[in-house]
Formats: sequence, C-alpha cells, structure tokens
Amino acid sequence: MMIRCSGHGRAYLDGLSMRGEVACICNSCYGGQDCSVFTPNCAADADDGNPLFLEPYWMNHAATTAVVVSGWNRMGYAYEDDSNISKELEKIIRQLHAVVGNANTSGKYILFGAGSTQLLNAAIIGLSPPHPDRDHSFSPASVVASAPFYQVYKQQTDIYNSLNFKWQGDTSTWKNKSDQVGNFIEFVTSPNNPDGQLKEPILKGPYVKTIYDYAYYWPHFTAIPTPADSDLMIFAMSKLTGHAGSRFGWAFVKDEAVYKRMSSYLSINSIGASQDAQLRAFVVLRMVVKDKAKGLFEFGYKTMRERWEMLNKTLSKSKRFSLQKLEPRYCSFFKEVTAYAWLKCEREEDHDCYAVLRAARIISRKGSVFSAEDRYARLSLIKNQDDFDLLLDRIDELVSQEEQPGLKTI
Amino acid sequence: MMIRCSGHGRAYLDGLSMRGEVACICNSCYGGQDCSVFTPNCAADADDGNPLFLEPYWMNHAATTAVVVSGWNRMGYAYEDDSNISKELEKIIRQLHAVVGNANTSGKYILFGAGSTQLLNAAIIGLSPPHPDRDHSFSPASVVASAPFYQVYKQQTDIYNSLNFKWQGDTSTWKNKSDQVGNFIEFVTSPNNPDGQLKEPILKGPYVKTIYDYAYYWPHFTAIPTPADSDLMIFAMSKLTGHAGSRFGWAFVKDEAVYKRMSSYLSINSIGASQDAQLRAFVVLRMVVKDKAKGLFEFGYKTMRERWEMLNKTLSKSKRFSLQKLEPRYCSFFKEVTAYAWLKCEREEDHDCYAVLRAARIISRKGSVFSAEDRYARLSLIKNQDDFDLLLDRIDELVSQEEQPGLKTI
Repeated sequence: MMIRCSGHGRAYLDGLSMRGEVACICNSCYGGQDCSVFTPNCAADADDGNPLFLEPYWMNHAATTAVVVSGWNRMGYAYEDDSNISKELEKIIRQLHAVVGNANTSGKYILFGAGSTQLLNAAIIGLSPPHPDRDHSFSPASVVASAPFYQVYKQQTDIYNSLNFKWQGDTSTWKNKSDQVGNFIEFVTSPNNPDGQLKEPILKGPYVKTIYDYAYYWPHFTAIPTPADSDLMIFAMSKLTGHAGSRFGWAFVKDEAVYKRMSSYLSINSIGASQDAQLRAFVVLRMVVKDKAKGLFEFGYKTMRERWEMLNKTLSKSKRFSLQKLEPRYCSFFKEVTAYAWLKCEREEDHDCYAVLRAARIISRKGSVFSAEDRYARLSLIKNQDDFDLLLDRIDELVSQEEQPGLKTI
Repeated sequence: MMIRCSGHGRAYLDGLSMRGEVACICNSCYGGQDCSVFTPNCAADADDGNPLFLEPYWMNHAATTAVVVSGWNRMGYAYEDDSNISKELEKIIRQLHAVVGNANTSGKYILFGAGSTQLLNAAIIGLSPPHPDRDHSFSPASVVASAPFYQVYKQQTDIYNSLNFKWQGDTSTWKNKSDQVGNFIEFVTSPNNPDGQLKEPILKGPYVKTIYDYAYYWPHFTAIPTPADSDLMIFAMSKLTGHAGSRFGWAFVKDEAVYKRMSSYLSINSIGASQDAQLRAFVVLRMVVKDKAKGLFEFGYKTMRERWEMLNKTLSKSKRFSLQKLEPRYCSFFKEVTAYAWLKCEREEDHDCYAVLRAARIISRKGSVFSAEDRYARLSLIKNQDDFDLLLDRIDELVSQEEQPGLKTI
C-alpha cells in the first residue's frame, strides 16, 4: 500500500513516523493532513544535497526492491567469510561499474564504509602513516583541495588535530612548492561539488597522494569520458541511487599497505559498515545491474537535464546572476548537466549572494562554505520536484524584477 | 520459511549468501549441505564476542520482528524533524531503560552511532576540546582505562596521533597524580570486558572526565544494583539483543557542550547512523519494550547462567586453571553470570595461557590484548550453542588430563 499524500509528501509504513502512526510527511512548504496545503511565503530551500530527485524512480519499482528482514536475520558481526564485507554486494558493485563504465575496478581492493563520508576520513588516515613517536620535527602530511571544495574535507582533517596530517587549504597555493615541503594529500572531486566541473589533480610528484571523490561520477550528473582508474577512488550510494540515509559507500584501493591501514581504521572506528545498510544496497543495486543500469540513469539524467535547462533558460534573461559554464565533453550527443548550480551575483554591491537570494525567499549555500567568495552561492538541483519547482518560481520572480524599469535601479 | 540446517547453521533468504543462492551457512566445525557433518579435530573458537547466544530467541519471534522495506523507503539524510535521529526510536530506547531500570535517562541528550564503537571515539573527542592552535606546550588530555581493559580504547586514542588527547595506559598508574598533570579521560566499563566485574571510576577531581561503557550493563550479564546516572553513558544493541552486525549504539550525555561536540563529530565522521540500522533497532527494541523486557532477558540470563555454571563445574576439578570470582551483589536471589570467562593458568610454567589452550584445540583471546599478563586468557561465553558446547568439551578434556597421573607431570 502506498499513500500518495497529494503528490507533495509520503507516508512510511515502518512505524518510524513522528507520532508512531502512518501519517503523511509533507514536502517543504506543504502541509495539512494530506499535504495539499501550500504555504505561500515559505522559502524555497535549495541548501542541502538531499538526493530525493530519484525517489519517484524507486516508487515506480516498489515491488521489485522490497525486502523482508526478520528479527534473526544476520545478527553477527561478520559474513560467512569472517569479513565485514558482503561478497555478493561486492560482486554487484564491480558489475555496476563495468556496466556504467565509470571505473576500472580490477586489481583493486574494496572497502565499505558509512557513506563516502567515513571513507574520506579513512583515506586521509590510510595515506598518512603515523610517525613512530611524537617527534615534533616530523611534519604532518599536508591535506589540500581546490576551491571551491566540499567543506567536509577540511572539517575531517581539522577535527583530530593530528600530528600525522594537517589541513593546508587551497591546492593552488602549493602548486609549485609541493616537491620541497613534504608529503601531500590532494582531494580531487570530479565532477566537483559545488560547481560540477570535471577535475584533475593539480599536484604531482613522488610525495603526492590523491584521493578521488567520485560521489558524482555517474551518468545523471556528468558525461563519463573514460573509466576512472586511479589508486584511491571513493563512491557512494547517496548520489547514485538517492539512498542517502542508508549511509553506505565504498572505496577502491590499489596499494595493499594503504588498503590495510584504511581497513584497520574502519574496524577501529565502527567495526565495518552496517549489514542492514549492506542488505539495502544489495537489493537496490542488484535491480540497477539487472536493468543494465538503464532505467535509473535515464530517469535521473532526464530529470537533471530538464532542471538544468529550465534554470539556464530562466537565468539567461538575467544580468544580475550568472551560472557556471559546463564544458561539453567528447561525447558530443551528451548535453551537460550538474547536481548543483554555482550561481554568481554579478552586481558590484551583491558581495553576499546568499543574502540577496535569502531576501527573495531562496535558501542557498554560501560560497564561503566552499572556501570561495560569497559572491557565489550553491543551489541544490537534486532535491524533490516540489523543492525544484518552488526554486525555479522564485528565481523567475527575481529575474523578472530586473526587467521592470523603475522598480529597481540596476 | 525457515530452513533449519540440522540445528548447526542457518539459511538467510536475503540473497546475500556467498553463492547468491539460499544455502545453509554452517556453525564453526560443522559442514555439509545441511550442516550435519561435524569436523572432529576442529578447534573450539571462543575468541570473539559475537553475541549469537540470543539468536534462538529471535528465531522464536521471527514473525513479530519481520519488517518489509521498500526501495523508496526513507531515502533522505534526515527524519522529518531534520535530525539524523529517529524520535520514535529514541522514545523506545528511553522506555527500555525505564523498564529495565539500568539507566536514568531523564535530562540527558541522546546520540546515535555506528555501534558503541563510533560513540566511544565521539566521547574522547567530545571530552577533549581542541586547543585553538598547535601550541606544543599545551598538553593533551590523558586517556586511561583500568587493566584488564577492552583494547579498542587504546587503538581509538592512538590512531589519530592527536594533540588533543593521548593514551596514557592503566588508570592505576595515575591514581594519586591526576590533579597535577592536566586533564584526564577515564574509561569505566561496567561490567568489565573481559572479567565481568562491576567497576567504578578510580580517578576523581575537577579535571577528570569519565566515559561509562555500559555495553554489558544488561540483566543477562549482571545484576543491576541501581540505575546508572552518569554524565556520559554508552550503550549498544550488540550485547543487548545480539544484533552486532547492525552497528547501532547510543549515548546519553548530560553536558550540552560535550553533546554538541560529539554530535558534530558524528556528522563529520559519517553524517549520523544508518537509517536502515535505526529501523532494525526500532522493530527489535519495540518488541522488547512491548514485552516489558521479560522474554529476552529471561532467555538470555538463563543461557548465560547455564553456561557459567557448567564452566565453573568443569573447572572446579582443576588445579591448573582458575576462573574470576564474581562478587554476589545486593540482589541475593541473583546468581552471578558473565559474558566472558577470564581464565588464569596457575602453573608456574604456563605463562602463555593462550598457547596452553591452543594446544588443546581451544582458541581464546590473549591476556596481553587486554593489557594484562598472558597468564590470563579470555573465553567468550556469548557465542552460539555449538561454539559453547565444543568449548566445554575441550575444557573438560583438558581438565581430565590433569587427573590422570603419569600422563602429564604437574
């Protein structure tokens, strides 16, 4: 049974709803018992990267992706091979990459984690082996990323105040110095969060290690020019299938020593990934693989492309705001898409783009969160349809105001 | 449908079995298609703390604890209140502690994590606020525990090589010095892993913080003299219901600042606990609470008591091995139990108790793993019945050898 909640919400039958009864949980700006009541002045929330744009796909495949879990199912710490990694799920994941063509997984170890989040952390630790003692002359590995970048890289590096690794900011600062000042760990996010650009490492040399965050390297967010074949690649279910709440991700690691340190960290940090999350991933990804990954990416790409085109069209009339340019890739039939709009406020006085949008009842994410100027703001295009529709309406309103002479001085 | 596998294994219907088909996964030392074939020389494995002694209870409640999860169920990062914590699950957990009487949860914040494991780490970070800069004169908080202790405390502290906290070994070393040398974080595990003793903090004073690890503070492992009412208490599903593979635990925290730092760490480390694990916990714990926690603890306590009594009886004949003494608590009707036997090899020459046991085809965990002498070894009593039965047989054999004069010199 699926309760539709007027198309502006959903009802879960798992008993975890707020009041312990089956009730509609409404989308933002919708209310009432069946979510049919729109709140007119409600702000369009384009802040977070909650990937609910894929929810309708799974609603259309509810029966084939349902699984019954009994109380006694898989209680122990480990699978039958004494590892925390389901070999069947591993097999499905390797098949998935082969079908999609976005990664060459052969000859690489696999690790599972609580989302890519836990694995990013594991990678930092895996790539910065500890000095045997607390020798203060020993310099920590420098961890860097190219602005604009995902703030979690910095937060994860800073929180431990470690002697083994230290946050050193924007990669470009270190471009011509990297050989002289010790070990470097560079985060490369491709396509990039927030701006959707395909990226390559900036630093090179024997003392540079690279962590490839491929959370968005899937056909609904980018052209796939070639299968990734790097030494340390991190993927996750969140942006691939939309199952963010499961907290499930995986990493491919070439080097055995790095793999072992990461594996040891994951054991010490949480004794591996939840088997409930692994079962969920298995059921969902098995369906994707059986379908040769067609349905999901067709639906996902179509949705992202429509949204990106509509936003571009609306903003094409604007002189006040501009969007990032996405370079066409070698697949010429592929129209560019992106998970996030990276909006620039072009007017001299609009140095706080977040505030400009907020005044127009649009919630964005500030440029400075990504270590960029606040003249930029990120708008999430991967939320549910109601969120996107309202965002587009509000952007449209904002752009219309530019065109009415006398209403505002430009 | 439940496939019985001769009572020496189980078949999961979730598709995650090794060969992708429904097949019996046999207990250790059993094989064959239906797990009916015993391998005679197989070693009794009493090493790990896999809590499968509770599996039969859940098999008997398979129908009431089954849940159907659909592909589109709860995909987003957050629940309807924008948090990563299911309020319904929180409610059930607070009710559970009230029913069991093992913790006073009122006026305390709650946090969810990937098992107690992730929360122990969060607690260290929450209790050791960072120094604003890398000032080398700033001394890190000293993290300590009383030997014998769970090795993960040390591993988690060491792995980050942090300037904020540092492992400083056995608590007793610091007993009369704690006021002079800066901040202390003391782990108190009660009942203790490995020896089952109820413990109190050793260090006191304004610069001492305490992390109470209550993973085993449940009626199947100990008498509950009084509800715990500490400032930072950690619990988990693993040793409570036996669902170790779900990786789900919770912490109660009194102080708001500590709670906020822990919460922030959990966001940065994994963006909260898996919702699939939270749903599993909800379904299982709801049943426990509905039953007023009777059936589970009756079954669990009866099993643990039988095992402890049988082991004691078998070892009572031995001069070579001795078991820890468990003090009777104020509930005089309660017979002592413990999750682990803490075995001592009494003979002068048996300084490696693990090796002595290993030669008799028993796999234990070395005393030195718990920072104790290797004259001690831990035997897990919480594994499945086959594991325990084989362990008891092998112990019996070993003890019988003592009694046969001429077979071995004492």
